[in-house]
Amino acid sequence: MYEDRIRCAALRGKITSAAEAAKLVRNGMRVGASGFTRAGDTKAVPIELARRAREEQEPLRITLMTGASLGHDVDRMLTEAGVLERRLPFQVDTTLRRAINRGEVMFVDQHLSETVEMLRANLLGKLDLAIIEAAAITETGGIVPTTSVGNSASFAILAEKVIVELNLAQPLALEGLHDVWIPGRRPHRDPLPILHPHDRVGTSIIDIPPEKIAAIVITNEADSPSTVLPADEETARIAGHLIEFLKHEVKHGRMSAQLPPLQAGIGTIANAVLSGFVNSPFEALTMYSEVLQDSTFDLIDAGKMVFASGASMTLSAPRQAQVLADLDRYRDKLVLRPQEVSNHPEVIRRLGLIALNTALECDIYGNVNSTHVGGTHMMNGIGGSGDFARNASCAIFATKAIAKDGRVSSIVPMVPHVDHNEHDVDVIVTEQGLADLRGLAPRERAKLIIDRCAHPLYRDLLRDYHDDALKIGGQTPHNLARAYEMHLRFNETGSMLPDRTGGLVASGA
Amino acid sequence: MYEDRIRCAALRGKITSAAEAAKLVRNGMRVGASGFTRAGDTKAVPIELARRAREEQEPLRITLMTGASLGHDVDRMLTEAGVLERRLPFQVDTTLRRAINRGEVMFVDQHLSETVEMLRANLLGKLDLAIIEAAAITETGGIVPTTSVGNSASFAILAEKVIVELNLAQPLALEGLHDVWIPGRRPHRDPLPILHPHDRVGTSIIDIPPEKIAAIVITNEADSPSTVLPADEETARIAGHLIEFLKHEVKHGRMSAQLPPLQAGIGTIANAVLSGFVNSPFEALTMYSEVLQDSTFDLIDAGKMVFASGASMTLSAPRQAQVLADLDRYRDKLVLRPQEVSNHPEVIRRLGLIALNTALECDIYGNVNSTHVGGTHMMNGIGGSGDFARNASCAIFATKAIAKDGRVSSIVPMVPHVDHNEHDVDVIVTEQGLADLRGLAPRERAKLIIDRCAHPLYRDLLRDYHDDALKIGGQTPHNLARAYEMHLRFNETGSMLPDRTGGLVASGA
Repeated sequence: MYEDRIRCAALRGKITSAAEAAKLVRNGMRVGASGFTRAGDTKAVPIELARRAREEQEPLRITLMTGASLGHDVDRMLTEAGVLERRLPFQVDTTLRRAINRGEVMFVDQHLSETVEMLRANLLGKLDLAIIEAAAITETGGIVPTTSVGNSASFAILAEKVIVELNLAQPLALEGLHDVWIPGRRPHRDPLPILHPHDRVGTSIIDIPPEKIAAIVITNEADSPSTVLPADEETARIAGHLIEFLKHEVKHGRMSAQLPPLQAGIGTIANAVLSGFVNSPFEALTMYSEVLQDSTFDLIDAGKMVFASGASMTLSAPRQAQVLADLDRYRDKLVLRPQEVSNHPEVIRRLGLIALNTALECDIYGNVNSTHVGGTHMMNGIGGSGDFARNASCAIFATKAIAKDGRVSSIVPMVPHVDHNEHDVDVIVTEQGLADLRGLAPRERAKLIIDRCAHPLYRDLLRDYHDDALKIGGQTPHNLARAYEMHLRFNETGSMLPDRTGGLVASGA
Repeated sequence: MYEDRIRCAALRGKITSAAEAAKLVRNGMRVGASGFTRAGDTKAVPIELARRAREEQEPLRITLMTGASLGHDVDRMLTEAGVLERRLPFQVDTTLRRAINRGEVMFVDQHLSETVEMLRANLLGKLDLAIIEAAAITETGGIVPTTSVGNSASFAILAEKVIVELNLAQPLALEGLHDVWIPGRRPHRDPLPILHPHDRVGTSIIDIPPEKIAAIVITNEADSPSTVLPADEETARIAGHLIEFLKHEVKHGRMSAQLPPLQAGIGTIANAVLSGFVNSPFEALTMYSEVLQDSTFDLIDAGKMVFASGASMTLSAPRQAQVLADLDRYRDKLVLRPQEVSNHPEVIRRLGLIALNTALECDIYGNVNSTHVGGTHMMNGIGGSGDFARNASCAIFATKAIAKDGRVSSIVPMVPHVDHNEHDVDVIVTEQGLADLRGLAPRERAKLIIDRCAHPLYRDLLRDYHDDALKIGGQTPHNLARAYEMHLRFNETGSMLPDRTGGLVASGA
């Protein structure tokens, strides 16, 4: 059975049930699981683990590392079963998020390029077990990943033992799509030889000795589809501002007509903005990104994009079905890489990417909060946004200017949590407009951000704050006694606006 | 005249006075000048420029870019003469700082690796003029830099015209010490081929066509000496904690016995800590840093350090005299590079540096403020600390736990300006102790930082804050209404301590 999927005959005897395989996980272990923004995650063993934890009396708490977020409610089930002691480097699950914010799960929010770098340097402890989804296992025991590479390769290489979830729902045609390059141990490391998004520099499989594979579990389930919302009026306007800006850059010789390779963060806004390029004058676009979303395939289908490099493909249900059925059409236009390669500062700086990521809120000086609601409560995590923004040739952050029917402004006097500071933020864009902050001092940035990006409802409030702060002076004028006035007012009244009833608008609702 | 120093005969006719050369600078120009932390700065033309601005009636305001800070009170004189409209990427001058904080000079505080990257990409406008200190000009018009390379090479290459200050006080023996490598224009750029701190990958001169050299000014003046203070009891204790930590890392196999290459920021604390390695068990140390200070030469002289790569040498007066007289002794142990190479994320990540930089203040979650006093007023600038901390294998920030006789705590509930966030800060060390934050969640970090790093005077205050913030909860608990209580109290009373008279201590005075 499964000869085409398990080509190393000696390994066919390792097939077992998810419940049996899950017994390899013991209390206190560190476990690395595949999965990057719902793609290529393990679909059976973690769920058995949650079941076992609920049924058994003995404690079963682990450190779980992944590529990024998981699908199939795995994080929810593990949280509800109390299995998660420590979780890194990213998540998007509501139940897990609440447990993190109650301090019940220690969440280590990391740049996505850094987890396996730290693991390899023995800074996160020994990895006991890897659980990796595969489309196939080769004659030599090599693992063919599925819709993501993420951290799977290094997890499999660094772990003591590996459980493979062989997913029959992932087509064999995925084979050959991946390019696995693993950096050497420092200080003896060679340059990462990627010079273009399409360069293939590694192997198409995760190369581990077959004897490390302790169990194989057969699954047959699609990835959870992406939850990205369709474009709306605001995201279309954001895309419009951004395309005008890029046309302007090309016109002034600061970007080539083909544009530098694009990166776009996960989520509705970035996806919608990227889709906006379908109707742009740009041709022969390339991506060097982490997550390939529907928009990437929209651009390929429209003949606008010639190549896309990522760490995963996270697609809506119809797109997923179409792309997986039609892989030969995309084969020469795609590559999936380990996330430390897709997000590597060396390559990002070399290629000079345009990086487009989403901000939760920005302050008037251009500092960005990507993660902490109210400065305290974790939303998802920084993800790859820092990897890209720091070294991109143009780091763009997009957000709608208001949220919650206008009761929240995404432009605030001072962000209560800084994921990206003024040094790394080149452009801020909202549906109101775009602020090009490059080469500007903070006082200049403030004027531009308030004028161009803030919602009219909040412009005067922000100007008043800045005028008041100017009395205190400094390179970055602030009045610390008032810096969080808008946030505190929201906590008290449910709105950042001073007049709770008078100011509400339907815009953006 | 100067045959040994100006070997291109055609250029000897370009010798002129500083005052004449300064006439090449006109109102509104963008000027790039050599100089990195006082080393290899231009010593005559900018001063003439200041004189001319004071004497002339017509406006003379320019954008001045340098490598980093300048000596010889150049920034003071230019500020007093009203010449500086815009200044980047770093400064340390008291007069300029005040003008910046009054909003009279637009200061663009940049990662030191990024200025010429932006200039090359035409993001900072056209560079009209470069003023570069040289030890010699070669037969082909190539410039031999002096005690710094900094941004000099790219300034000379990118500027329309170049003024050379030929400084006879800089020994000709400096020739050959430099390694100038310039990255290609993106997106067609090769890997930066440095695999070890001692690798030489470029040319020993700044290679420009001789016809670009518009004027040569002869000077004869030493670099301004560094202003670093001697080690004291606290810095010795910081060094002690750090060396214990590194020994522990070696013992547990997380670092090699030789240690990864070291980077150390400019300043008294980093210099003193580095000097502490003289009495450590570590051997065959290397540096891959930006500024080489006295401590580097202490370590070389002690036989502890085998090679040091930097962008400049900034030394005390006696060290400067000794090193410059004795260059042959250090020749095979030193290289000076462009700052975008010394600070390049690609090399920093590849070599896995230990990065040691100074914090102005840290918060209980490990966010670091390196630049803004009180969150508003610029001290010096971020410098290279971000370039290094982001990609080092171990990013350490050092500070004394208190300042101003105990009236200021360097550990605070929330920093009012974030230069390095939790994602990039691995270790915080004060004279009180060391907190290893790697792999920890914010709530865990807070406990460790308060217990290990905070001064006993402030521990209870910080614990009270954190306990109160825990009631609000979240991944990173904060009470925004109280987050800046200590800062506001200092503004009001001159002390962060609640009891102004009772709490003062002499420690650290």
